Amino acid sequence: MTDNEPSKVAADEVAHMKWWGWGDPEVSFAHNDKPQLRGFIQKHIDVDVALPGVAPLSIDDLQIAPSVVPAALRKQLEGVVGVENVRDDKLERVMHAYGKSLRDIVRLRRGDAGRTPDAVLYPASEAEVEDLLRIALDADAVLIPFGGGSNISGSLEAERSETRPVLSLDMGRMNRLLDIDAPANLARIEAGALGPDLEKQLNNRGWTIGHFPDSFNHSTLGGWIATRSSGMQSDKYGDIADITRGLRVVTPKGVVAIKPFPSTSTGPSVREMVLGSEGRLGIITEATVQVHRIPEKREIQAYLFPSFAQGVRAMNEIASSDAAPSVTRISDANETQFSFATKKESSRVDQLKSDAMKMFLEKRKNYDVTKMCLSFIGYEGTPENVKRQKKLVGDIVSSYSGIGIGSSPGQLYDQKKFDTPYIRDFLLDRGVFADVSETATSWSRLVPLYEGVVKRANAAYDELGTKGWIMCHLSHSYHSGACLYFTFAFKPVDGRDELEQYDMVKHAIQQGFIDLNGTLSHHHAVGVEHKPWLEQDISPAGVAIMRTLLDGVDEKRNLNPGKIVD
Amino acid sequence: MTDNEPSKVAADEVAHMKWWGWGDPEVSFAHNDKPQLRGFIQKHIDVDVALPGVAPLSIDDLQIAPSVVPAALRKQLEGVVGVENVRDDKLERVMHAYGKSLRDIVRLRRGDAGRTPDAVLYPASEAEVEDLLRIALDADAVLIPFGGGSNISGSLEAERSETRPVLSLDMGRMNRLLDIDAPANLARIEAGALGPDLEKQLNNRGWTIGHFPDSFNHSTLGGWIATRSSGMQSDKYGDIADITRGLRVVTPKGVVAIKPFPSTSTGPSVREMVLGSEGRLGIITEATVQVHRIPEKREIQAYLFPSFAQGVRAMNEIASSDAAPSVTRISDANETQFSFATKKESSRVDQLKSDAMKMFLEKRKNYDVTKMCLSFIGYEGTPENVKRQKKLVGDIVSSYSGIGIGSSPGQLYDQKKFDTPYIRDFLLDRGVFADVSETATSWSRLVPLYEGVVKRANAAYDELGTKGWIMCHLSHSYHSGACLYFTFAFKPVDGRDELEQYDMVKHAIQQGFIDLNGTLSHHHAVGVEHKPWLEQDISPAGVAIMRTLLDGVDEKRNLNPGKIVD
Repeated sequence: MTDNEPSKVAADEVAHMKWWGWGDPEVSFAHNDKPQLRGFIQKHIDVDVALPGVAPLSIDDLQIAPSVVPAALRKQLEGVVGVENVRDDKLERVMHAYGKSLRDIVRLRRGDAGRTPDAVLYPASEAEVEDLLRIALDADAVLIPFGGGSNISGSLEAERSETRPVLSLDMGRMNRLLDIDAPANLARIEAGALGPDLEKQLNNRGWTIGHFPDSFNHSTLGGWIATRSSGMQSDKYGDIADITRGLRVVTPKGVVAIKPFPSTSTGPSVREMVLGSEGRLGIITEATVQVHRIPEKREIQAYLFPSFAQGVRAMNEIASSDAAPSVTRISDANETQFSFATKKESSRVDQLKSDAMKMFLEKRKNYDVTKMCLSFIGYEGTPENVKRQKKLVGDIVSSYSGIGIGSSPGQLYDQKKFDTPYIRDFLLDRGVFADVSETATSWSRLVPLYEGVVKRANAAYDELGTKGWIMCHLSHSYHSGACLYFTFAFKPVDGRDELEQYDMVKHAIQQGFIDLNGTLSHHHAVGVEHKPWLEQDISPAGVAIMRTLLDGVDEKRNLNPGKIVD
Repeated sequence: MTDNEPSKVAADEVAHMKWWGWGDPEVSFAHNDKPQLRGFIQKHIDVDVALPGVAPLSIDDLQIAPSVVPAALRKQLEGVVGVENVRDDKLERVMHAYGKSLRDIVRLRRGDAGRTPDAVLYPASEAEVEDLLRIALDADAVLIPFGGGSNISGSLEAERSETRPVLSLDMGRMNRLLDIDAPANLARIEAGALGPDLEKQLNNRGWTIGHFPDSFNHSTLGGWIATRSSGMQSDKYGDIADITRGLRVVTPKGVVAIKPFPSTSTGPSVREMVLGSEGRLGIITEATVQVHRIPEKREIQAYLFPSFAQGVRAMNEIASSDAAPSVTRISDANETQFSFATKKESSRVDQLKSDAMKMFLEKRKNYDVTKMCLSFIGYEGTPENVKRQKKLVGDIVSSYSGIGIGSSPGQLYDQKKFDTPYIRDFLLDRGVFADVSETATSWSRLVPLYEGVVKRANAAYDELGTKGWIMCHLSHSYHSGACLYFTFAFKPVDGRDELEQYDMVKHAIQQGFIDLNGTLSHHHAVGVEHKPWLEQDISPAGVAIMRTLLDGVDEKRNLNPGKIVD
């Protein structure tokens, strides 16, 4: 039993993204301040983004079915969380219907909100979550936990055929840093805390969690754990699976309480069963996570490499070296060109510098500047250690014909890193489908996988008869391999269902991952999107074992059914 | 399907420990060459080890029940592995009856070989293991996988009440390094490889696994994985759970094949379900593990601290620093005194040096030399990095009133580290019960746990009315905490069952771990010994979830039943 006071945050104070798209309702992407972008998109996707786009839809255009929560059940739920924390207005139901995948947003634009939840519940404490779970099981209702709603693997939507009451459990009120154990470098935090909330509470006391996924502003600790998240500084701080030591989870078997040991040999790891469980075992209410003192110095340096293969070899060697960078990232040539194309208007001086750099690269370094690759490497720690690491990395970079180009591009990247997802809605307004797919594999298989996946995506575009784009970066390094993160975009052709075309491209990429020795997802989880590849990834017997666990704990399919395995 | 050739190793070539005790049949512990040891033991446990001991028993003194393998089943088993690889002679059956816990050895000395397996099988390939599992399930027989047999938690013994045929599956023939993927730093190795076998095969090609548990010489890769092993260089290389990336496991659901990804988000981790599963999900046949190039330089430095608490604080700070030592170890005052008492005869010069050191510590550093604590810290890497780390650590050590005493004690420790377990049989010959118990907890709870456990052990000795000994070292450091490793010894009193007295002391220590916020075991697994504390460790709901998994996969209790959970 936890002794936390119930949260005093009101449901109305819980932040949500645009119901129809990504991110902060006040923020959107614009191309006008990026002089090269229009031409770039025109050239590569054959779309003129200066032409007026289609405005996102109005909530009035959506038809959703009436809520099927029986009055008696509703009364019970209200008895637990209070009338004001059981919501069933249209906006609340639609906001909790999906995550934020391309498919989700396209479906909403088509007026299809799927099997919208019948009610959204906002609990204030673990005790309330326990009561809600018991009531849901007794009433044979479906419970779907909801964090920031940023998932793009279909982990948040109810099954279309579901006839039982569907309850979305929004954890947003439970967002407190409960306790820091300073000598142990551990912080106990409620699962519903959004990235900025928890990081600010930690920063105020001199600490950081060091977990910064692209979704950081709109995802929660519980969501990170439930989907095995990874962040852009995971090279140093570890993935969420490493960071998470203790857990409290409300399950049909009772409250699972995993103590925050640094390591233990208590049989198969229940901690690692909860990680990635996407609500199928229960509701995560709090976690005890590793935290670190805010480093004295932090910087991100930019480098250029003559090719992606050379850059990847450098990252491989850096990962085995005594340097331990916080970020290791290298973009392929396409993503490098895209980065340059999103630059804002540059001054005359900057333009001259840039011209001089181009000349230097071509004449003195023999670069083909259309093939060069931009890399960011991050360093943290004492000034001496940052200096030492930079030296070690610098030597490795040089030995692969790379060159350092200073810290300004890295600063820009660091400031803008959470803005990129906004471009998707901008493109969608203009009829362009853009999405991401990521994988991980061992160092020896990385470049063949990369080349093969690009080839397969382009083959899919060819088959559709459209001009498509695919770009990639290596986003995290490990001792034995790395994560590759692909972004793809194309304009669906007329006369054929657009989502069917999206499926074709996405399928080509995912099947490429599997066929070329990658995993189906490094940190976006399984949900429903990646289910078709699970047996090919962890083997049919692996899936059978996972099913034994999930179905055994949730015998009547009340906990986010249909996710991970059928 | 794996394409490995079957092993050509014969069953007779598989190394086994003494059937009646620890280690190499040719090696034993002697006190004569350690002039201070006799007095030390006399003083602290009230036993004169110079008096003649009881010789270990003869195999003829053991009575075991006849094998209950029906002829038809035997024929099937022989059909798979060959007649020569189905053994049921007394020695083979007794060698596979237990692990090597104090309880196991005492029971053998009492002529009690428990529910000895009816036959020992030596498969040569995964295909053979698959056939054996199928046959065992069809015949409703029990299968218990056996690696090096070093387990001390009761993971290897059949349930006493078992009436079905019990088959011990000795994996010793499957001991090959199959493949090294150099850029990926990964090696594929068969599960039956003993520590020295696999390390030698790796060393020959310039690599190391970096996994050195105390049992290294007598334990296997599969055993390490099945029990969540940790080694003395795990600070740098990680626990076996980190090292193990890929797995192949023969289960009732088929062969689980986990690919060696550096990280993945494919739902609850099946890899982490196999880790620590002690044969309850199936038989591990091979693993793909992280390996490292043999470091250029490797050294272990010794330090002294005025107290255990000061030393632990230093380790805590070292773990958060930029130094990343391969070994962090500090003994309490008792273990420090024990270390000094096991020193061999020293030369006159050494004696003078030692006297000078004592005077320096007492007069100049204000040490109480009876309370001082010996610490070993290991460094690996390039000479520059070893130097840098030593400097960082040295500064921290000084700030906690510690002092460096050079590399000679560390060299000795490094050479002798696998010899300590031999002392147990030597003591047992002389009527002394000695055993180990280990735990892990967060930094903030380490010293109170340490002090509380010592108090509880001493209270148990007092209650028994015997003079007992308990000593401890911190053996591994993590970001958030560390492992504490206790060794205890006492002479049971007359007129009361000796194992009952052992249980009383062991129970006091284990319950101390739980009550004082530690885990039931950091790396010795659950087996049957630690089952009583599992619910108090991972919570009743955690056990229920684990049971759902284990019982769901092994519905008829054929796979090492009774281990981890009932």
